[in-house]
Amino acid sequence: MPAREIISTHPDVRGNVNEALIRSIDEAYACSLSCTVCADACLAEEMVERLKQCIRLCADCADVCALTGRVASRRTGSNEEVIRQALQACITACRLCGDECEKHAQMHEHCRICAESCRRCEQACQAALQSMQ
Amino acid sequence: MPAREIISTHPDVRGNVNEALIRSIDEAYACSLSCTVCADACLAEEMVERLKQCIRLCADCADVCALTGRVASRRTGSNEEVIRQALQACITACRLCGDECEKHAQMHEHCRICAESCRRCEQACQAALQSMQ
Amino acid sequence: MPAREIISTHPDVRGNVNEALIRSIDEAYACSLSCTVCADACLAEEMVERLKQCIRLCADCADVCALTGRVASRRTGSNEEVIRQALQACITACRLCGDECEKHAQMHEHCRICAESCRRCEQACQAALQSMQ
Amino acid sequence: MPAREIISTHPDVRGNVNEALIRSIDEAYACSLSCTVCADACLAEEMVERLKQCIRLCADCADVCALTGRVASRRTGSNEEVIRQALQACITACRLCGDECEKHAQMHEHCRICAESCRRCEQACQAALQSMQ
Repeated sequence: MPAREIISTHPDVRGNVNEALIRSIDEAYACSLSCTVCADACLAEEMVERLKQCIRLCADCADVCALTGRVASRRTGSNEEVIRQALQACITACRLCGDECEKHAQMHEHCRICAESCRRCEQACQAALQSMQ
Repeated sequence: MPAREIISTHPDVRGNVNEALIRSIDEAYACSLSCTVCADACLAEEMVERLKQCIRLCADCADVCALTGRVASRRTGSNEEVIRQALQACITACRLCGDECEKHAQMHEHCRICAESCRRCEQACQAALQSMQ
Repeated sequence: MPAREIISTHPDVRGNVNEALIRSIDEAYACSLSCTVCADACLAEEMVERLKQCIRLCADCADVCALTGRVASRRTGSNEEVIRQALQACITACRLCGDECEKHAQMHEHCRICAESCRRCEQACQAALQSMQ
Repeated sequence: MPAREIISTHPDVRGNVNEALIRSIDEAYACSLSCTVCADACLAEEMVERLKQCIRLCADCADVCALTGRVASRRTGSNEEVIRQALQACITACRLCGDECEKHAQMHEHCRICAESCRRCEQACQAALQSMQ
């Protein structure tokens, strides 16, 4: 888990790490990777016609996760309202992308892995959001 | 305005362009640029100590605007819930960043320009969000 | 052209704007938008099977242009070696993506517009690279 | 290591994983996170005046690593020239950022961690580049 080690050394953080938020950062980076690969792997499938919506949701989810990983990892000053809305957008993007990938999980192993990644990220962002309220 | 020309040729769009959403895309790209430059220009100022919160908000706003420009410009299938939440996060990020930059607008011309950019993007995203409800 | 106005107010820049580099930033942002839309529009075409390579090149080019627009717009301290390599990667990505889009330009208007955007960005990055050597 | 599992299921990859390239993707994502946090943590330090160049290099390196992680993880069709130039830019960005962070490693733990992250990413991209030639 790379986020914890470095964020715990931030001058405004020492001794006050929000573990739930940390976990959402790691999951957001991992999910951005999974969704980027799944969008690209779906495109390479013979039955790409049936995977258009899946590619769209994966492309959006990859971008939302990348954004969430970035804003949730900054600690200078404060911008909690933006972090909360990024987490909220990430929960939605991961839920929709996970639902769609699950439909193709038996046919395509990358969709199965991506759906799992989306579930983990959705839950981690959900927990992080609760920790900030 | 680059977004309108190319999005109007999308096979799922022809003849049905959402002008408010188009405008939010152009403003989001422009605001991402302004915020990236303003964060970097604040860092170069002698009085960087007083600009830490401004740099933080600009860095976050640059990332949120980039995300919004991307997800709001896709039209294959549908993902309206994610677009709406990206627009919402963008409205918040631009409002907070614009408020902070405005405080420094008399001292720093880049903050004045960035604040204007944030206001335009906030309003465009507000209008786009209303057009989608 | 949004980049010129704000970058000219950067404390380390005043009175010493690199016009070629400024233009590459504007073109990189515009081309990132075009390529994001073209990848998505190709995906929505009936003949998506024949557009797989085009979607791949557009997705990569959108990411490379976004990177170039960001690093080329920072002026605090210096990082010229990285700017040069980003410009070089952008020239290559735009050349390859422009060549591929051109093949589909008669069939798909978004490919024609995207190819033009890639050509402008390639040339602007070429001129910016020369201005830095 | 999240990249290996999902990329190995890509229809154009099965049974032909480039292990060096896979490792560079994982390291690029991890380094993008470290550099994003280190830029922000440096900004929060009292002696931010002496860390301006470090913040600049970290911000650029975070962006270059994010780009590299994305383009290096796509396998549909081919775009090897762009992957190679992204890896090259990443090697340079990580070398320069790692050198700068090392100067502050004794004072700031986040710089020590970030420097290590940059070294690992630089080496992984170096190996990936060699594997593609």
